[in-house]
Amino acid sequence: MSDLDPVIAERLKRNADGLFPAIVQQHDTGEVLMLAWMDDEALHRTLSTGRGTYYSRSRGEYWVKGATSGHVQHVRGVRLDCDGDTVLVLVEQQDGACHTGDRTCFDADVLM
Amino acid sequence: MSDLDPVIAERLKRNADGLFPAIVQQHDTGEVLMLAWMDDEALHRTLSTGRGTYYSRSRGEYWVKGATSGHVQHVRGVRLDCDGDTVLVLVEQQDGACHTGDRTCFDADVLM
Repeated sequence: MSDLDPVIAERLKRNADGLFPAIVQQHDTGEVLMLAWMDDEALHRTLSTGRGTYYSRSRGEYWVKGATSGHVQHVRGVRLDCDGDTVLVLVEQQDGACHTGDRTCFDADVLM
Repeated sequence: MSDLDPVIAERLKRNADGLFPAIVQQHDTGEVLMLAWMDDEALHRTLSTGRGTYYSRSRGEYWVKGATSGHVQHVRGVRLDCDGDTVLVLVEQQDGACHTGDRTCFDADVLM
């Protein structure tokens, strides 16, 4: 059971695993930094702590961005989309968001 | 079978339904407009036609953004993320991207 505000929880639509995608964007430059996954509790922790917090599908656990790397995300805003199935997290990203060291996860592989 | 370039297809990671999320961003302002889903064929059509083309999970069919609304997306770039499981589509969005008439799907519901 999550401590997420029930007024928010009732608007969310989750996949079969109880998750929804979170797009993470640098609040001032508009750079799309990464996409991660949340469940209700990850969203609650993001809103209540002001640190980008996600759910790892591969490890089956919560993770706070920057907890090991120091590349913390200070959350400046969170928005839910019109369908209630995706959130947009506006952050102040310390250093690179990508585990490769790049600024964003979308810097390296240009298809077009 | 999709006509997607096999060099791209081999780098993609798809969910159990063969899909991956596509973040759609206005190329110059940086606005995050919407999140939709693609399979290999939708990505192939997006790259080859230059029009944002997605797969509707609810209707089980491809859709070209703006085909009915006129709110077309002219594609200016496509990037694959570091994990190969999300694409970022940079577009010139005609009018509103959201079916509600809003400019983006993230304008209406501010959680924080």
